[in-house]
Amino acid sequence: MSHGSSQSSMSAPRAGAAVSLLPTYLADARAIQKYSPSTPNGALQLSVAENQMLEDLLVPSLTEFSSYHHGSFPADAIYYQPTHGRESLRQAVAAYLNNLLELEQELDPDGLVIGAGCNAVLENLCISLAEPGQGVMIPLPYYAAFDFDLGSRAGLKVVPVPTMEHSGAAPPKSSSTVPVEAYYPTRAALDAAKEKSVKEQAIEPRILLLSHPQNPLGICYPPHVIQECIDWCRDNKVHLVSDEIYAGSVYRKEEANFKSALKLARTPYGLGPYIHFVYALSKDFALSGLRVGFLYSENLEIRLPLQKLNDLCCVSSHTQLMVERMLTEKTSSDEDAAFWTDGFLESNHMRLQKRGDKWQQCMKELSIPHLSATAGLFCWMDLSEFLPAEGTPDEQERALYLELLRDYGLLFTPGRSMHNELPGFFRCVFTAASDQEFHLGLERLRRFVTKKRTA
Amino acid sequence: MSHGSSQSSMSAPRAGAAVSLLPTYLADARAIQKYSPSTPNGALQLSVAENQMLEDLLVPSLTEFSSYHHGSFPADAIYYQPTHGRESLRQAVAAYLNNLLELEQELDPDGLVIGAGCNAVLENLCISLAEPGQGVMIPLPYYAAFDFDLGSRAGLKVVPVPTMEHSGAAPPKSSSTVPVEAYYPTRAALDAAKEKSVKEQAIEPRILLLSHPQNPLGICYPPHVIQECIDWCRDNKVHLVSDEIYAGSVYRKEEANFKSALKLARTPYGLGPYIHFVYALSKDFALSGLRVGFLYSENLEIRLPLQKLNDLCCVSSHTQLMVERMLTEKTSSDEDAAFWTDGFLESNHMRLQKRGDKWQQCMKELSIPHLSATAGLFCWMDLSEFLPAEGTPDEQERALYLELLRDYGLLFTPGRSMHNELPGFFRCVFTAASDQEFHLGLERLRRFVTKKRTA
Repeated sequence: MSHGSSQSSMSAPRAGAAVSLLPTYLADARAIQKYSPSTPNGALQLSVAENQMLEDLLVPSLTEFSSYHHGSFPADAIYYQPTHGRESLRQAVAAYLNNLLELEQELDPDGLVIGAGCNAVLENLCISLAEPGQGVMIPLPYYAAFDFDLGSRAGLKVVPVPTMEHSGAAPPKSSSTVPVEAYYPTRAALDAAKEKSVKEQAIEPRILLLSHPQNPLGICYPPHVIQECIDWCRDNKVHLVSDEIYAGSVYRKEEANFKSALKLARTPYGLGPYIHFVYALSKDFALSGLRVGFLYSENLEIRLPLQKLNDLCCVSSHTQLMVERMLTEKTSSDEDAAFWTDGFLESNHMRLQKRGDKWQQCMKELSIPHLSATAGLFCWMDLSEFLPAEGTPDEQERALYLELLRDYGLLFTPGRSMHNELPGFFRCVFTAASDQEFHLGLERLRRFVTKKRTA
Repeated sequence: MSHGSSQSSMSAPRAGAAVSLLPTYLADARAIQKYSPSTPNGALQLSVAENQMLEDLLVPSLTEFSSYHHGSFPADAIYYQPTHGRESLRQAVAAYLNNLLELEQELDPDGLVIGAGCNAVLENLCISLAEPGQGVMIPLPYYAAFDFDLGSRAGLKVVPVPTMEHSGAAPPKSSSTVPVEAYYPTRAALDAAKEKSVKEQAIEPRILLLSHPQNPLGICYPPHVIQECIDWCRDNKVHLVSDEIYAGSVYRKEEANFKSALKLARTPYGLGPYIHFVYALSKDFALSGLRVGFLYSENLEIRLPLQKLNDLCCVSSHTQLMVERMLTEKTSSDEDAAFWTDGFLESNHMRLQKRGDKWQQCMKELSIPHLSATAGLFCWMDLSEFLPAEGTPDEQERALYLELLRDYGLLFTPGRSMHNELPGFFRCVFTAASDQEFHLGLERLRRFVTKKRTA
């Protein structure tokens, strides 16, 4: 029967197809010896978006939050919970987000869904907004795992949105002069990407997904850019999903001028059906192991479907209890005392800024073009001057990636794995290392640049 | 573009379609006042498969397991974990299952995947084994949520397997003489269901899903029935998924003669690619709030896909730590001391048997045909003598269901919601109540039967 389409009766074709959506660049890295005190020449892993600078703050606090206010595990947490999360936790999350995003109008806890990570809630949100085969527009460059998260089970197609041609900024003559404006998704860029997708691939975009603050660029889109996206989405009846998972990692607040899409899209009639939001504890709290993600929407047509679909990716009641305590804990018994989260995020900002400044200082010394980072865990570097002369852009970048990895022990995320338009750009995750490793990374980069330029 | 197929630009058709797969019988129950000490005439909820008899054992133990062996939250649990679960937890789960299922050959921890509930791991397993539109065969009657779990995102179709005509047992003359054998899926029943599905619906079954011990029947399939299913699956290159979520709730061990499919399917060459297993803590440990499920397979073609897909429904590291402690805890520091799980399950068996015996004693007194329950939380009752004379079978059963609910305050799971072949059968979850509520349920059933028979 199905043997025609199926390669083997032992598995379904979609199982292998899902795996093929994963980024492949790490395969090269697997064979390389990693850095450790006993293998000091091993490669430094600066490509995974984790913040390893917060253990000293997290371990004692998580230990405390794991205990129970009234001494024992609450009996009601044994049984089935509301599929979209415990009510008290949804209230705590709403209050936390109101504060973090500086919202004038408070979020409705009934519009929140708590699921097993940002990827899990994003998947269900997109399933509720688009049919298999329809498109999710994402400005370039974008987080490589979106292809898997949106494609593997939801069956959605990523529609890349190139920005450079339509940015209104002077077109980059050479890659080393790319201004930050060239990365902004403008109306022209969105129109062009949508039209091309429909005409050339017969894929209808139903969703525009923004990473804001932007991963991998380490910047925030200015409010006027977000506003343009909101207006374009409403005009085109395309859903805007604002992924603000780094909203609490904006460490240069003035320069960043970060404004949540939830703030900018608010009208006297609410957000309306086309504006949606996702967030998680994985980045701002460095708690990727907890798999706790949130989505928010005021679209009532998808509320019940989202609550039901979330039954397939619920967060343990046990962890919901700990997270509720974490989000509501005050730093003292004083009524006006600050929340624990405020102090934690402030410490994080100081640490992020210190490392970010050091890395950018090094970039400046070495005259390596880079974006001025204000948020997230990244610095976006233009290493295109070091691309070999021969080969396709992909081949050129891969050669440079392997040279950095094998000859200099530096594992950065290659820009082409994030679908960057120009080759030779890399994301450095400057938080994915100890202080000592971070400084070794700076040293190795200096050595690389010096050697290449004097060769 | 897609506006032809889409009812509204505000949501995707599949969002509403997913909701339509949910069982509807509880909608009638929502408007009814529930029983509580202050509303003593309210309806008793005996239709949700939860075990509420274990709080006194669970609360102190969970409190203890929530603390950390070495005093503080382990730093490595902050970060991304292996997507299929922490290695130490997979080892603990393998050891627990080896013991529970009395396996001669130990499970390979690398074949285990730990995900956010039995529904979550089952979905990914079936996604890896079958394409959208293909079929999952399930013997009747079956747990109503399988339609949602397998259909909503995985796009699979449930192919019902009627058993009565093909059971080899004498065909039931009236519904009140249905012997247990009539529910066994035989080769003849499987052949007939597969052929009908392919011919009449063009759905190719790729999976046979067994609930073993059986929900809602409260029995275990005898080993020869499981063996027949294993052989049939291997002969037909259909995947067997044995859902053994009630394996630790077999409370009449001798009568039940429960044998895991993992035990019966084992060959000198392993399980082979067609045998798979799912389990969870929700039933045997009454921990549905924790959302901790397991799958096991030795099919290497789906191993990597399963590990990656599980990234969309991971269990919090925090809860993985607690569960690891729960599964490895000994009752004393003595090396030969029993595991905490053994003592817990033994207590549970005694309590299940006590309630089960009482309910069945009442059935006997009232001469209500029922299956002799040996496992799970259920008693399967034949109330067809009380069906009204008029209407289709569905209408008859619904009238009886509403009468029990509205006039007698008894909320049982109606058999037709579980696709039972004959109308008038109900599942009583005798654990979903306090002792006092349970006895009130018995009393109300006696009143119902007496009144109906004397009417």
